[in-house]
Amino acid sequence: MEDNFTKLAYNVKAASKKMAVLSSELKNQALKNIAENISANKDKIFEANRQDLEDAKTLVDRGEITTSTFNRLKLDENKMRDMVQGVNDIVRLEDPIGKILLKRELDEGLVLTKTSCPIGVLGIIFEARPDVIAQISALAIKSSNAVILKGGKESVNTNKMIMSVIQEALKKTKGFPEDALVQVFTRDDVAQMLKQDKYIDLIIPRGGNKLVKFIKENTKIPVLGHADGICHIFVDETADFEKAKNIIIDAKTQYPSACNSVETVLIHKDFPQKDELILSLKEAGIEIILTPGNWHKEYGEKKLSLKYVSSLEEAIEHINEYSSGHTESIITEKDENAKIFMNMVDSAGVYHNVSTRFADGFRYGFGAEVGISTNKTHARGPVGLDGLTIYKYTIEGNGQIVKDYAEGLKSFHHRDL
Amino acid sequence: MEDNFTKLAYNVKAASKKMAVLSSELKNQALKNIAENISANKDKIFEANRQDLEDAKTLVDRGEITTSTFNRLKLDENKMRDMVQGVNDIVRLEDPIGKILLKRELDEGLVLTKTSCPIGVLGIIFEARPDVIAQISALAIKSSNAVILKGGKESVNTNKMIMSVIQEALKKTKGFPEDALVQVFTRDDVAQMLKQDKYIDLIIPRGGNKLVKFIKENTKIPVLGHADGICHIFVDETADFEKAKNIIIDAKTQYPSACNSVETVLIHKDFPQKDELILSLKEAGIEIILTPGNWHKEYGEKKLSLKYVSSLEEAIEHINEYSSGHTESIITEKDENAKIFMNMVDSAGVYHNVSTRFADGFRYGFGAEVGISTNKTHARGPVGLDGLTIYKYTIEGNGQIVKDYAEGLKSFHHRDL
Repeated sequence: MEDNFTKLAYNVKAASKKMAVLSSELKNQALKNIAENISANKDKIFEANRQDLEDAKTLVDRGEITTSTFNRLKLDENKMRDMVQGVNDIVRLEDPIGKILLKRELDEGLVLTKTSCPIGVLGIIFEARPDVIAQISALAIKSSNAVILKGGKESVNTNKMIMSVIQEALKKTKGFPEDALVQVFTRDDVAQMLKQDKYIDLIIPRGGNKLVKFIKENTKIPVLGHADGICHIFVDETADFEKAKNIIIDAKTQYPSACNSVETVLIHKDFPQKDELILSLKEAGIEIILTPGNWHKEYGEKKLSLKYVSSLEEAIEHINEYSSGHTESIITEKDENAKIFMNMVDSAGVYHNVSTRFADGFRYGFGAEVGISTNKTHARGPVGLDGLTIYKYTIEGNGQIVKDYAEGLKSFHHRDL
Repeated sequence: MEDNFTKLAYNVKAASKKMAVLSSELKNQALKNIAENISANKDKIFEANRQDLEDAKTLVDRGEITTSTFNRLKLDENKMRDMVQGVNDIVRLEDPIGKILLKRELDEGLVLTKTSCPIGVLGIIFEARPDVIAQISALAIKSSNAVILKGGKESVNTNKMIMSVIQEALKKTKGFPEDALVQVFTRDDVAQMLKQDKYIDLIIPRGGNKLVKFIKENTKIPVLGHADGICHIFVDETADFEKAKNIIIDAKTQYPSACNSVETVLIHKDFPQKDELILSLKEAGIEIILTPGNWHKEYGEKKLSLKYVSSLEEAIEHINEYSSGHTESIITEKDENAKIFMNMVDSAGVYHNVSTRFADGFRYGFGAEVGISTNKTHARGPVGLDGLTIYKYTIEGNGQIVKDYAEGLKSFHHRDL
């Protein structure tokens, strides 16, 4: 088993070298072929999805999966249209590979260039939502990365069918390397994947807290993503009541299980309409938890922890201590306080007078995202194509050696071109 | 012990939040004070260094450390001047923090900004070379990161003295946070440090292969650096003899124990002057190892592995299989071959007709470096100030909620400002 997986990973790594040199035209052609082929085969995909849904129904009856998971499994015409549209959108985005990030003449005839290049092989592990495959595959192709995908077992038939439709489209794309997109299926495959630090360069988990924590604890490969989404809203003394109310209700109720929904609301003790605000939240169906000690809690439903604070500083300290570093917002009419908050809070997203739910690649205008990162290195916040790139340095010369510079015969002039 | 370290790490993390908002002026003032104070106290530093050297002498006699380690421990007037100069050079570099990387109007009155910010707390573990402390401290300060430093035990007296001179300078700098630069000393401290993934954001090891491997295997904190430095030079069929000879001799002999010195030379079997080339290398005192199976070997002395290859493709394949991803060079007069090589070789540095020894932050014009990374994420190659930054996204609004966009009452227009 282990040897088989190593061989597979080796092949994907080999394909990734070929991906690195594909032209923008070829990559876009591949994406267009994928979009077309998904449209042409939507009945087959629906049929595979129906099989998954039947199996899932019994799991729902037995209480093994929730209704919301069931709903995420289900493809409909809208999701199918969005999936095709999503791939086509990525065609229109600028190619993130081969961008010249720096060009510097170190000395006469000695030129350093820093060029964006793909990371190599991505390992993507996701739960439920089979429509994610198309989006992830499209992002990987556009960024010239090879990818090993492992989807949730509940949607295995849909996953297989979508992948086979994608593979068919790639075969039609002359010059597109084999083995660049590979799907694996079992729990053992995940265990093998996490060991392949020689061939896999980055793991991106998309799924629940448990999955992400398990992965982070079991691999030496860099992991990009977030486990918790404990977002905060701080209602300052000078907050506008209507803004505070609407924003908190939006951030808690518009999609309570999203990672960017709010979990803890901090209210300045001198905010005059605090009782009225709490009443409005309750009227909106939000349960308010006032007992302390829930500061690490991600509810995923219409519940939130509430704490009164005596100052802006106390709010910032609370957030920096308990936040998962995802997204926080201050509601205030005092720009100076907003400025302090935005400078001092150390999270991927820090907002002023807007809902935390805006933390999303589409809303940021990135076209698509592979996920949202709470890492402090590489990529932070919603991760689009840029987060799937790194760079290499090249030097063009005509025989230069370091000895001449070390001994002072020559010297660097470092002129940016 | 563990609790003490956690408390220390907590304090450094708290200091890092204050570092994040320091002005460029204050940071530069701190650096100038450090440079001045090192100059003013150089006799004290030399005295501490003499103590270390005495202890080290007995270690050399007992064969526990090498003469080259002993030499790296030793400070002299030149190294002292370079240390002061290095700090002053960093004053002149542009502040890497607070740069606006993207500013985009998502909708009327809803503005997204992506701003560079510090990573937070760096954990830096280095061996020997006490002069490194000043450089690392200066880079950390300029990039607004707090840092926990652990130096090699052989230079403990010098390390302590340099750090106390730095601390004295920082105390003189009004507004500079306490606990932002902390030094620890024991092996147990390193073990504790590697566990602090809540408070330490990035570990940078500078030292031998064993140290780096140990660290990578024993922490969940991202590690930036390189273990091996297995660099290659490929002499193509059309190589210029003089260039090939000079470059290989430079790359192997100018500083054989450097990570960017060459370990394996690949020669195209049809290169006409191959025998002459090997003869010149031998004349330069280089031992040529022709037995296969040494492709993973980092000699660190005037030895290199040699292999004949039948094609450019074979050379590229060999490098992508055995290289540590540090730096490789092709010697060729055929630009087309150079282009293929530079596109297909997946290393941090890929050169044409120059010595691999150019892989260095100073030579690249970065002013200074914390080290060289062979990672595929975050920062690759020589890492200067840029590699010590990440970014945060802020949104300024006036009450916007996601529901309005989800329900189609409003829509994004994504206009870059």
